[in-house]
Amino acid sequence: MNSALAVRDQFPAIPPGWHYLDSAATAQKPQSVIDAITRAYGHDYATVHRGVYERSAAMTASFEAARAATASLIGGEEHEVVFTRGATEAINLVAQRYRNGDRKRVLLSQLEHHSNIVPWQLAGYDIDVVPLTEDGRIDLDAAERMASDEHAIVAFAHVSNVLGSILDARRAAAIAHKVGARLLLDGCQAAPRLPVDVAAIGADFYAFSAHKIYGPTGIGALWARKDLLDAMPPWQGGGAMIDRVTFEKTTYLPAPSRFEAGTPHIAGAVGFHAAIDWTRDIGLDALHAHESALVTEARAALRTVPGVTLFGPEDSAGIVSFALDGVHPHDIGTILDDHGVAVRAGHHCAQPLMDYLGVPATARASFAAHSDASDIEALVKGLHAVKRIFG
Amino acid sequence: MNSALAVRDQFPAIPPGWHYLDSAATAQKPQSVIDAITRAYGHDYATVHRGVYERSAAMTASFEAARAATASLIGGEEHEVVFTRGATEAINLVAQRYRNGDRKRVLLSQLEHHSNIVPWQLAGYDIDVVPLTEDGRIDLDAAERMASDEHAIVAFAHVSNVLGSILDARRAAAIAHKVGARLLLDGCQAAPRLPVDVAAIGADFYAFSAHKIYGPTGIGALWARKDLLDAMPPWQGGGAMIDRVTFEKTTYLPAPSRFEAGTPHIAGAVGFHAAIDWTRDIGLDALHAHESALVTEARAALRTVPGVTLFGPEDSAGIVSFALDGVHPHDIGTILDDHGVAVRAGHHCAQPLMDYLGVPATARASFAAHSDASDIEALVKGLHAVKRIFG
Repeated sequence: MNSALAVRDQFPAIPPGWHYLDSAATAQKPQSVIDAITRAYGHDYATVHRGVYERSAAMTASFEAARAATASLIGGEEHEVVFTRGATEAINLVAQRYRNGDRKRVLLSQLEHHSNIVPWQLAGYDIDVVPLTEDGRIDLDAAERMASDEHAIVAFAHVSNVLGSILDARRAAAIAHKVGARLLLDGCQAAPRLPVDVAAIGADFYAFSAHKIYGPTGIGALWARKDLLDAMPPWQGGGAMIDRVTFEKTTYLPAPSRFEAGTPHIAGAVGFHAAIDWTRDIGLDALHAHESALVTEARAALRTVPGVTLFGPEDSAGIVSFALDGVHPHDIGTILDDHGVAVRAGHHCAQPLMDYLGVPATARASFAAHSDASDIEALVKGLHAVKRIFG
Repeated sequence: MNSALAVRDQFPAIPPGWHYLDSAATAQKPQSVIDAITRAYGHDYATVHRGVYERSAAMTASFEAARAATASLIGGEEHEVVFTRGATEAINLVAQRYRNGDRKRVLLSQLEHHSNIVPWQLAGYDIDVVPLTEDGRIDLDAAERMASDEHAIVAFAHVSNVLGSILDARRAAAIAHKVGARLLLDGCQAAPRLPVDVAAIGADFYAFSAHKIYGPTGIGALWARKDLLDAMPPWQGGGAMIDRVTFEKTTYLPAPSRFEAGTPHIAGAVGFHAAIDWTRDIGLDALHAHESALVTEARAALRTVPGVTLFGPEDSAGIVSFALDGVHPHDIGTILDDHGVAVRAGHHCAQPLMDYLGVPATARASFAAHSDASDIEALVKGLHAVKRIFG
């Protein structure tokens, strides 16, 4: 098996001999995305939504085209997308402003990223935790038994950032809706790796970040069903989100503008659009097949290294976490770095999952469009070096 | 008088014959800033604070160096700067998380931007409004009479985005502190135009945006006195701001990390740093002198156009708002655009100030390092064309 999309030469920040296996933390950028950002600042730059001059009108059109592309990527409508700083802010916005009657509980899972735990704690929700199946998926049978009419929201990772496990999102939606709860999906790891269709899923909220899907830092998206977004009161106040301001009373614009106070990340939206175009040109089906093949290859190769433990399901989406007997993941990461292999070592912002797995940390290799068999070979070679050092 | 810093050829998005007079909305970018962003994505890119590999450690060092530069620009300390999406988010953060005992009132002025009005309304504060002097400054005599021990915060624009009026910030600090209130300065228009020293001022909070000081979109800064920042509880939850997460209880990192949930705007911070370096290389004193000379020249030239009304003080900082008898500012902006002159026309996110001035909108010309006499000549020539069209 040898999966290669032959796009590595489009990634200027990946020099020959460097094996970047940390795409789940943040994706490297193809030249077309970098060029779009450079052009936005160096040729087309102006503010949006306010200028009466042509340059500003053109930039506003580009900004709103980015919103349409973002919505379209996941099967949503343009007016249902709020640009946020990233997925983290998107989830915080829902936690702090969405209300489902007077329900005060949320149903999460054991594998959630901190960004899908802490916002609910800060917003005062009580949390129920769905356990995992033996192979590291969210146990939806358990979720079905646990879901109740006390739950405002069911919030799950669409793809686990540690285990790569893919959620059966349609079933999760059915479980949530049966008890009158809403389904929020943390799509950070899914949007770059799977075809996503929020309408087909029946999702209510979907959060993801541009920088994980080959786009710029500092921007992400909250998609929400129009009726839910319309019912949410404003969160941050400022310019561009108001209808009429007096010191006595202020009225607000409709969603999504109501949630975008201040000058937005203009060049970020343009770069996000370019990243979405680049990803769709390859095709999410092709990307998913590519990364799935690499995961299969990587798991087989890692099993040849004595003392390796693999976490997560065999069919994980582009992400493989592992441990090596007697070696702390931090040391794995450091020694692999000396061999030109960049992996993540740590708790991956998922400490409750580490507690569940009974480890302080894991090493994690994650793939992207530019990954190929040479990255896996370098990883395995590096792990043999780790073993030599640690005896 | 002919002030020119001779830097226009460093701004690739300003073609010959185009007169960009909307820098108060957002600044155009010098090539060094664009290059820094391109290099961040195209050569140095990695996540921060988490990777054990060398590339990530280097990017973390760059990110934290940007924080130090941001603090240093305004005379603050590195650990006192929180990176936000922009000034708007910075003010929202203070409004939503800072508490001064049980005080529930804020003292604002009539000329504040919506970003320094609406956040206080959304956070539930009652607002008292300081009037303006005849020439459009915040009336600090009135402020002194109005300030009371009911005020949690005194929050003023350091420089007005409409009138260019410069606040006597030290006196404002003394007025606030005398009654036990804190002084927050909206520094959006001051940071790019004046030397700022928060320690010398005695300020408690200072907010500004990178995109107005020749930097990228999507990032800005809240500077706050360390003891105040330390006392503020977290706002948004997620990765990078936690100490230890369990579903039962989560503990948080100290400030400023506590307020930076999620992957930050990494390339934005790098670009912000480059913009600060570029600005300091010219020198804030030189920039202020340059823009002050242009304002003097512009006000004199605008007075030669029959029917022009000028707003704001004679010594405004780089910003001139005006009206033309019988012509709506929107029409001024549109016709000037046809003549290659980009000005802002509208309420400038300061509707209460428009109400006070008794106009629905103004036209505004604002200057930057690249501005020169040719911009003013083009503006005046364009206004004569407006007058010809409107008779």
